[in-house]
Amino acid sequence: MLDSKIGILGGGQLGKMLLQKAADFNLQVSVLDPDPEAPSKSLCARFVNGSFQDFDTVYNFGKDLDLITIEIEHVNIEALFELERNGVAVYPQPQVLAIIKDKAHQKDFFVKHQLPTAPFELANGAADCIAKNYPIPFVQKLRTGGYDGKGVQIIRQAADLSKSFDSPMVIETMVNFKSELSVIVARNSAGTMATFPTVGMEFDPDANLVTCLYTPTQISQQAEALAQKIAKQTAEALQIVGLLAVELFYCSDEEIYINEIAPRPHNSGHHTIEANNTSQYEQHWRAILGLPLGDTTPIAAASMINLLGSKNHEGPAIYDGIEYALKTAGAHIHLYGKAMTKPFRKMGHITV
Amino acid sequence: MLDSKIGILGGGQLGKMLLQKAADFNLQVSVLDPDPEAPSKSLCARFVNGSFQDFDTVYNFGKDLDLITIEIEHVNIEALFELERNGVAVYPQPQVLAIIKDKAHQKDFFVKHQLPTAPFELANGAADCIAKNYPIPFVQKLRTGGYDGKGVQIIRQAADLSKSFDSPMVIETMVNFKSELSVIVARNSAGTMATFPTVGMEFDPDANLVTCLYTPTQISQQAEALAQKIAKQTAEALQIVGLLAVELFYCSDEEIYINEIAPRPHNSGHHTIEANNTSQYEQHWRAILGLPLGDTTPIAAASMINLLGSKNHEGPAIYDGIEYALKTAGAHIHLYGKAMTKPFRKMGHITV
Repeated sequence: MLDSKIGILGGGQLGKMLLQKAADFNLQVSVLDPDPEAPSKSLCARFVNGSFQDFDTVYNFGKDLDLITIEIEHVNIEALFELERNGVAVYPQPQVLAIIKDKAHQKDFFVKHQLPTAPFELANGAADCIAKNYPIPFVQKLRTGGYDGKGVQIIRQAADLSKSFDSPMVIETMVNFKSELSVIVARNSAGTMATFPTVGMEFDPDANLVTCLYTPTQISQQAEALAQKIAKQTAEALQIVGLLAVELFYCSDEEIYINEIAPRPHNSGHHTIEANNTSQYEQHWRAILGLPLGDTTPIAAASMINLLGSKNHEGPAIYDGIEYALKTAGAHIHLYGKAMTKPFRKMGHITV
Repeated sequence: MLDSKIGILGGGQLGKMLLQKAADFNLQVSVLDPDPEAPSKSLCARFVNGSFQDFDTVYNFGKDLDLITIEIEHVNIEALFELERNGVAVYPQPQVLAIIKDKAHQKDFFVKHQLPTAPFELANGAADCIAKNYPIPFVQKLRTGGYDGKGVQIIRQAADLSKSFDSPMVIETMVNFKSELSVIVARNSAGTMATFPTVGMEFDPDANLVTCLYTPTQISQQAEALAQKIAKQTAEALQIVGLLAVELFYCSDEEIYINEIAPRPHNSGHHTIEANNTSQYEQHWRAILGLPLGDTTPIAAASMINLLGSKNHEGPAIYDGIEYALKTAGAHIHLYGKAMTKPFRKMGHITV
């Protein structure tokens, strides 16, 4: 297994952290990314500069590999289906990506499998959304292409409809939640699953983006058990091989809804590098390589702070305050190596 | 500091682990190694295949860099002196390497600075060693070029003299020690120092090579304090910038001798990746980049086992028992990625 020729679609920070761990297992990994200076570039055996959304590029990247994985779900799924037909292992599987990539399919999937999620409708664009006359407040989520808080917005009052998205979207009832949680679950090809302890997430209300997370959470054992159960049920229903991050709305100990899911290492698992016996990155490799899943026991309580691009700066990245962080015992700095910053861009993180 | 153009002489496992950590700080690192498939090869921004013992190769590798460091001390020191004269920062400094590279100079240095070390003499070769009639048992250490247990042997009885080394060597009184210890100390250009807790080391008596280590040790607080003090005194006397591993013979709480020293990350600090707030690799970067030294507090007790090439196998590496290790909670596998194994070659390690 350890001598498989492996490829990752995407070479951002998640790919980079996968590669840092891959080195411990001496995995031979190729990376495909459209950015010639992607964060993963100098950490892989082979870097291919090209679009992971283009059929031919993905197909040619993967055809001589044994195993393909992803660090972003906005990839050319048709090429992955074709590679799978030609004997390349693709984990997570293309059919899982097809469900998750489109938020309408995600929602249908939750309903079909009786997984708890907020009521919703679909709309084709702004006019259709207004015509639906959905009870305000509600949430608009673009069906495809959203990331890092983009593609999600809240319609709090009628006036907000003037800034409505104008692409196919999910319109979803606002859940009256007390906090947002995330559970990362790994599932390997034998069907074995292992979850990481639930984390609590804080969001920037403007950017709709995680600013920090903490674990353990303050929720009851009952709620913890429910969150973990929902995550496992979702992974089981998807039959996913690899990691699945399940973002949840915590309303009460009996009421937890799935917000959305991601079939890969996730921002809400960065802290596991230092804070758990096995990190989410190692666990992803174990799951997709058919190895025993690792022990996820926490070593310590942890908090993770995203280093986001300043609201008012776009251009070359400047890191302020690094000295202070370096002086803080137990603070672990991770800079992603993006040359250019823009408002709310994920530039790094610090785990304490 | 973080945007310095950095070079490492040597691309073995120590270089590899330096690079895995360098990625967290987004450091741009070039590596020079004679092995075109060195473990560090695919983890650096630029890999140069060439000899770190050749003046021109080292000089040309370093002349456009801001900072050079090493992961092995058997390098061309003259080239490093020349680079330093031309304004390249070289840490550890060439004058430190000149002392450490030659075990006779190391011993002279210990004596000069009143650092505790076993009595010794020098011999030019086998005949000279026999002529010295040094009290048996004693230890022969080649003055230069030894590594991984090579270049050190014990003359236990007169008959052993027939297998005497025949190159310039140190002949050293055998210390009657109870155990072997190691302390890793970091010192930055401001003169600030930080030590890691002392580790105990177990050796393979045939290969004269560390097989496993453990920390904390069983020694008394008094002995711990003495070991730490000796390590700091040595680093201070050398005025080294970077890491210094100080290997020690523990005889009693009042009697601890320096065995030898290494000016770089060391086998006896591998466990710090998982077991301490700051790893030795991160600490080396902090020290040589002029950053605040990190907190070395242990997170947990740790043991590290070297994965050595089997006694009776030379050829392509085969990893037996990986599945078992992967199933062990808290076991962290590090494979160095050396294609070929030979008896006692360091192929990887596992930290528990």
